Amino acid sequence: MAKEITSREEDYSQWYLDIVKKANLAQNSAVRGCMVIKPYGFSIWEKMQGQLDKMFKETGHQNAYFPIFIPKSFLSKEAAHIEGFAKECAVVTHHRLMNDPNGEGVIVDPTSKLEEELIVRPTSETIIWNTYRDWINSYRDLPLLINQWCNVVRWEMRTRLFLRTAEFLWQEGHTAHATKEEAIAETKQMQEIYATFAEEYMAVPVIRGFKSENERFAGAVDTFTIEALMQDGKALQAGTSHFLGQNFAKAFDVKFLNENQKSEYVWATSWGVSTRLMGALIMTHSDDEGLVVPPKLASTQVVIIPIPKPNDEIDTAVEKIMTELKAKGITVKYDQDKKKRPGFKFAEYEMHGIPVRLAIGKRDLANGVVEVARRDTKEKSSQPLEGIADHVEQLLEDIQNNLFQRALDHRAAHTSHVDTMEEFQDVLENKGGFIYAHWDGTVETEKKIKELTKATIRCIPNDWTEEEGKCILTGNPSNRRVVFAKAY
Amino acid sequence: MAKEITSREEDYSQWYLDIVKKANLAQNSAVRGCMVIKPYGFSIWEKMQGQLDKMFKETGHQNAYFPIFIPKSFLSKEAAHIEGFAKECAVVTHHRLMNDPNGEGVIVDPTSKLEEELIVRPTSETIIWNTYRDWINSYRDLPLLINQWCNVVRWEMRTRLFLRTAEFLWQEGHTAHATKEEAIAETKQMQEIYATFAEEYMAVPVIRGFKSENERFAGAVDTFTIEALMQDGKALQAGTSHFLGQNFAKAFDVKFLNENQKSEYVWATSWGVSTRLMGALIMTHSDDEGLVVPPKLASTQVVIIPIPKPNDEIDTAVEKIMTELKAKGITVKYDQDKKKRPGFKFAEYEMHGIPVRLAIGKRDLANGVVEVARRDTKEKSSQPLEGIADHVEQLLEDIQNNLFQRALDHRAAHTSHVDTMEEFQDVLENKGGFIYAHWDGTVETEKKIKELTKATIRCIPNDWTEEEGKCILTGNPSNRRVVFAKAY
Repeated sequence: MAKEITSREEDYSQWYLDIVKKANLAQNSAVRGCMVIKPYGFSIWEKMQGQLDKMFKETGHQNAYFPIFIPKSFLSKEAAHIEGFAKECAVVTHHRLMNDPNGEGVIVDPTSKLEEELIVRPTSETIIWNTYRDWINSYRDLPLLINQWCNVVRWEMRTRLFLRTAEFLWQEGHTAHATKEEAIAETKQMQEIYATFAEEYMAVPVIRGFKSENERFAGAVDTFTIEALMQDGKALQAGTSHFLGQNFAKAFDVKFLNENQKSEYVWATSWGVSTRLMGALIMTHSDDEGLVVPPKLASTQVVIIPIPKPNDEIDTAVEKIMTELKAKGITVKYDQDKKKRPGFKFAEYEMHGIPVRLAIGKRDLANGVVEVARRDTKEKSSQPLEGIADHVEQLLEDIQNNLFQRALDHRAAHTSHVDTMEEFQDVLENKGGFIYAHWDGTVETEKKIKELTKATIRCIPNDWTEEEGKCILTGNPSNRRVVFAKAY
Repeated sequence: MAKEITSREEDYSQWYLDIVKKANLAQNSAVRGCMVIKPYGFSIWEKMQGQLDKMFKETGHQNAYFPIFIPKSFLSKEAAHIEGFAKECAVVTHHRLMNDPNGEGVIVDPTSKLEEELIVRPTSETIIWNTYRDWINSYRDLPLLINQWCNVVRWEMRTRLFLRTAEFLWQEGHTAHATKEEAIAETKQMQEIYATFAEEYMAVPVIRGFKSENERFAGAVDTFTIEALMQDGKALQAGTSHFLGQNFAKAFDVKFLNENQKSEYVWATSWGVSTRLMGALIMTHSDDEGLVVPPKLASTQVVIIPIPKPNDEIDTAVEKIMTELKAKGITVKYDQDKKKRPGFKFAEYEMHGIPVRLAIGKRDLANGVVEVARRDTKEKSSQPLEGIADHVEQLLEDIQNNLFQRALDHRAAHTSHVDTMEEFQDVLENKGGFIYAHWDGTVETEKKIKELTKATIRCIPNDWTEEEGKCILTGNPSNRRVVFAKAY
């Protein structure tokens, strides 16, 4: 089974697509650029959603739902927003089909043309801020801390399952505040929640930083980001949190009376992560045998396989193990399928990245042991049945930590500090990864470097330190290093 | 505050809209027919979703996600499906906007016309069965038990918050089976899950039945339904489960090799409930003081109000109560807002339908008691602080049961058996409700009765009994009564 996967060394892009396919995560659909998320892929996305939703609610956010359609005129109300965005999108122009008078099938009824075209939301700032105008009158209505889980559509030309699709699933938080300081604090809080989620649940280390002007979200004053590094040395933007200033409040005329009865524009943030996280998860941990899922996001954490087949004696022993594991909140599946052989099952669960596999046969039972295999290192060992649940619990924690440490080591090995364009290009070509370099702070230089090398400024780290230096391209003075990389 | 609501007697329709507005459940948006589900409304929908999702998973279903767009040509592949459906829908014809060369704003880029128009899904049978063709080869791939939670769009002309909106949220289950019997069993199982959910969680009694040919889902061989009765005597279809036969398998060429290596078409079901359930919930239980939410679906089950304001002594006592309630899995909110007076808070929580309110002041504390008010009957009593959590737990159960019993009594009082058209029309005009009457079984008669009275056949009850009689309209022989009503 493993042979069906292209190795990473041979072709990293194909390896990624092979994993997505063979691990039953997603597939392309009949509609250009839109994916089908298959049940197994969706079960991992649900785990992500569940944890993120919990973290949002713990910090006082509530879910709501806004319309999928945005009147065309809304998009041009915030100048920068429409300029940098929302041009490639799905446009609804009619609202009725009719039987084709000339034959088979249906055609669009020409009499059903809409007065104003509707855009399938590429993001919802405009329709939400248009609604907030009704919801916000006084400082007592603030802060307004709202999130929505939904689908969005951006008509991407070159799509790639999970990483870039015309339709994707995401959450978008949209908050409203009485002061600039509070809105900035919210923006940073959400960046930190994303970073915590990425590191503690996805086991993906991230750089917390903010974007250069050129890479900012259209309509944002400041964009905070978390940037992860994939195994092939390319960066992946895993989540963004935007401080929107009063831009959308001004565009949609959202004001509030402050405590002194003075009317002011509201301050805004928005923040989102999407099914793109699935791509980050796959590309950070998986190997040439298939998907590797961190235990905290595995929809099934442990699989038990009877050797060679289930029988009463094995079933009884497994029943006991399962009860103990479930009592610890561990999700476990017992594969009793008699039609498939153990070797086939081993390969299948390896492909799907189940963190821990237990195999148990007659001889094991006689010896009071069970074979335990961990997916991350593929190590196997024989463990006493007595206390097996404690062992597995500890092992899941070890795997979670090991995956994070492995990714952290990979990032450390692929992080460089360079001082000249020659070094910069050499690292990009031969090693990849994050490159800390001096930059003169201009959009022009940033664009020129991108043109020359395809590398972009991923971010300026939140914890940047003052350091005198010269821009690698222009030689102009710079007081800090920024992080460059080629990116997905 | 209660005065802001129109009474049911005065104007039931306006009462409904007042509740939806004043209890912060939903509102109309800037987009025709599309609603905004507000945080409080969404929190109740999330409780519904959570419970239904659990019931689906317990019966072996998995979630997945399919594209929001359906190629126009797919819709005409199943003849009955397009005939009965999918004419009023949102049609995407272009994929790009551009700056208006003549001035402000953006226009649709005429060069971005799609080769084939895309329809925003009104339901997903077609795109899903087109996908199942790849997923199903052998009997080993069956049954396939899949559900998706998503938004759908039907271009309704006359909309009404939750009950009928252009965009709504729902779940749609789509299952594939090797045999007709198994598919029918699945269809019935899902009807029973919906009925159990309606009765045990929503406290809404329902008739389990199946639709007459005329009222069947477009493309279905048989449509099972659950029908509820609202306070104004009108019926509401609360969920449907369809046995689709091999219709979609034939339309999309989905075959499997059976155990004897013979190729056969797959058998299908689909089933769904939507945000319409929110309308059913509101209209079954609420009163002239506002929303009433059954405890099992309340996002906040208990609210505690300090009289007249919080202080250290009260806070300490409340802390203890909250700990005890939370230990029982009861959701509780302590309203410490000092800016609002108790009377205002009482009205507000009444409006929002919080099942139980505790009020606690200095004198209560001295006496070791707390005032307990239940939302359903508005009864108040003084209860000892000692053992208050047990009391509240029992009270929540009582409220849940009382709401169901009250709705059941209302339905019994509004269920009639009639034998003539005169009686039929008399009941419809003066009493409303479900009417059990004889019908000759023809589509023609059914349509004629609808024309004359606006009443439709809601269903033929699953447990119908043989009874000789004459059709109320034609006098032709009939061997069972069917259920008529005016419906939402």
